[in-house]
Amino acid sequence: MAIRRGDTVIFSHPPVIAAWAAVGGKKESEGPLAASFDELVQDASFASQGCKSWEQGESLLQERCARRCLDKAGITPEEVELAFAGDLQAQCTASNYTMRTLNIPFAGLYGACSTMTEGLCLGAMAAAAGYARQVLAMSSSHFCAAEREFRTPLEYGGKRTTTAQWTATAAGACLLRPSGSGVPVLSATIGRVCDPQVMDINNMGAAMAPAAAATLLAYFSGTGTRPEDFDAVFTGDLGQVGTELLHEMMQSAHHPIPNHRDCGCLIYDVEGQNVQSGGSGAGCSAAVLAAYVLPKLMSGEYRRVLFLSTGALMSQTTFLQGESIPGIAHCIELGSPEGGNGK
Amino acid sequence: MAIRRGDTVIFSHPPVIAAWAAVGGKKESEGPLAASFDELVQDASFASQGCKSWEQGESLLQERCARRCLDKAGITPEEVELAFAGDLQAQCTASNYTMRTLNIPFAGLYGACSTMTEGLCLGAMAAAAGYARQVLAMSSSHFCAAEREFRTPLEYGGKRTTTAQWTATAAGACLLRPSGSGVPVLSATIGRVCDPQVMDINNMGAAMAPAAAATLLAYFSGTGTRPEDFDAVFTGDLGQVGTELLHEMMQSAHHPIPNHRDCGCLIYDVEGQNVQSGGSGAGCSAAVLAAYVLPKLMSGEYRRVLFLSTGALMSQTTFLQGESIPGIAHCIELGSPEGGNGK
Repeated sequence: MAIRRGDTVIFSHPPVIAAWAAVGGKKESEGPLAASFDELVQDASFASQGCKSWEQGESLLQERCARRCLDKAGITPEEVELAFAGDLQAQCTASNYTMRTLNIPFAGLYGACSTMTEGLCLGAMAAAAGYARQVLAMSSSHFCAAEREFRTPLEYGGKRTTTAQWTATAAGACLLRPSGSGVPVLSATIGRVCDPQVMDINNMGAAMAPAAAATLLAYFSGTGTRPEDFDAVFTGDLGQVGTELLHEMMQSAHHPIPNHRDCGCLIYDVEGQNVQSGGSGAGCSAAVLAAYVLPKLMSGEYRRVLFLSTGALMSQTTFLQGESIPGIAHCIELGSPEGGNGK
Repeated sequence: MAIRRGDTVIFSHPPVIAAWAAVGGKKESEGPLAASFDELVQDASFASQGCKSWEQGESLLQERCARRCLDKAGITPEEVELAFAGDLQAQCTASNYTMRTLNIPFAGLYGACSTMTEGLCLGAMAAAAGYARQVLAMSSSHFCAAEREFRTPLEYGGKRTTTAQWTATAAGACLLRPSGSGVPVLSATIGRVCDPQVMDINNMGAAMAPAAAATLLAYFSGTGTRPEDFDAVFTGDLGQVGTELLHEMMQSAHHPIPNHRDCGCLIYDVEGQNVQSGGSGAGCSAAVLAAYVLPKLMSGEYRRVLFLSTGALMSQTTFLQGESIPGIAHCIELGSPEGGNGK
C-alpha cells in the first residue's frame, strides 16, 4: 500500500487533493496572487463580524477558508471525517476555536510555518490507508497576531530589519480523499529538526534553509530522483535571504535547483510591497499552494512538483532565554490529475 | 486494513506498543506510582546537567524518557522512522528541542493534555499502514514551565483554588510497531472540540469533562460496546472535579462508568500531596499510561481497556481576552498481548 524509501513514504495508490481554497488579508489583496485567492478580507480583525481581537479574526479567516474549500468539494463540515490544522498562536488557539465551530474530529498540529505540509503528509497518509474518506488539512497565520506573539506589539512601532519576513494574513485549506478526481499526492516526507544556531528572530530564512536542504536531499537520495525530474520545487517561506542560502547549499550538494520557487517570494511583490525579505507564516505556503501551485497542476502546466513548507521552531520564551532557532521542513510530491486536464 | 465506525478507526491488524517509559520529577517521586517510573529527577530544572531554565529541563526530561523507551525496545534513535510529540509550552518548544537532539523525522502535535493519546492514535495509524516500522509517541509537561506559561510565575506565590490541578513534571513515551510483541492498539478515536463555556483557568476538569464524555459516547455508539465491556476506562487528567462531572454526564447518557479511573487522581495522593483537584499536564496521562496502565495489560491483570487523554485548549492570550476554554479528548482501545502473559 505504501513503500518507504529513506524518510519518504511513497503511496502505491496515491490519495488526491480534491478541492482547495485560499483566503487572505489586505496586504495579500495587493500582491501578485490576489486574483487567485477565493476570498480577500480588508478588515483583518473581522470587527464587522463581531471579532474583538486579531486572534479571533484569524480563527474566522481559517473558518472561511475551510468552508470555501468544502463548498468547492461539494460537502458539508459534517461529512469531513478527520481534520489536521495548526497555526502560530501560542497553543494553536486559532485552529482550536475554528474546530470548535466546524465540529470535525480534529488532530492539532504544531509545525510553525511547516504546518500546511505536515497536515498534508498526515492527511494523505490517513486518506491513503482508508482511515478517513474526507480529510481536511489547513493552516493559517495573521500578521498582527504573530508580531504580538513572537516579537513586539505593533503599537511599539519596532523597526524591521532587511532580513525580516512579513507574516501573511492568510489561510489555506485542502480536502483530501483516498481516490477520485484531484491532484494526486504521490509521496510524503516528514522532516527532521535542523539547527544552524541562528539567534535572530528577524532572520527566519536563515534558520529554516538548512532544514529545507536536508529534507530535499533526503527525498532525492531516498527516491533516486534529481531536481530536474520536477517541473518545480517549492519551498514554504524562506524569503530572499533563505532562498539564497538554500541555493548555495543545494549547489554544494551537487543538486542545484534552478526550478526552485519560494512561496514567500511569490505571495508579495517583494520589492514593491515593503515586506523586506518576503512573506512567511503558516498561512503563506498554505495560501500559495491553493492559489498558485494546485491550479497549475490541475491545468497541466505542471506535471510533477515537490512542495515543501518550512518552519522556524522558536517561541518568545526560548528566544528571550537565548536559545537558537531550529528549523524543520516537510515535503509532499504532487502529480498530474489522472484523466484531468494534463497536457 | 481498517474499518471506520463513527469516529473510531478499528485496526484489522492491530499495531502494538512494544516498549514504554515514564520519567517524573520530585512531586511524582512522592506519589503512589513512584516505584513504577523508569526515572525520577529531584532537580526539575536539570541545572546539574547544564540546563538554564525549566523549559530546557522539560526538554531533557522528554529526551531521557525517549531514550529509556528506546533502550527497552532495544533500538537506537537512528532506527526510529517517525516521531509524534508535543507539550504545553508555547509553540511546543520542549518537543522541538528534544527532537533536535534525537534527530528523528518529526511531526509536531498540539493537543494540550490530550497530546499523548493524539500521538498514539496517529502513531498507531502510521504503524498499522506500514508507513513506518518504529514509531515514537511522546509528550511531557513541567509544573514550573506551565505555571509561567498559563497562569503566573511561581515567584508571585499565587493562591491555588480547590478546583486547580497540579501540572505533572513528567514525560511518557511509547514505541509503536506494526506487529510483534507488545500491547495491541485495537482502535483509535480522534475527538472533537467541545466548549462548555468554562472561563476559569483554575478549573480545567470542568472544561475537559464534556469532551471526554463526547468521545466515550462516540466510541460506544460507533462500536456498539458498553463501559462494562472493558476492565477499565481511563481519562487523562480530569482530576476530582472533572471526574465527578464526567460521571454525572455518563450517568445521564445511560452509560455509567463505575470502572473509570482518572490519571490525574492516580499520579498523586490527591488528599495528602496538596495538589487540590489532582494532577494534569500533557505528561500526566503519558506517564500514568507507561507506569500503570500498560504494565497491567502486559501482565494480564487487564485484558481490554479504553484510554483517553483530555486537553484544555486555551492560551494565556485568549484567557486574558475573555475567551472560554474548549476541551478535546482522544481515545485508544488497548488489548491483551498475543501469546503474552494474559490470564
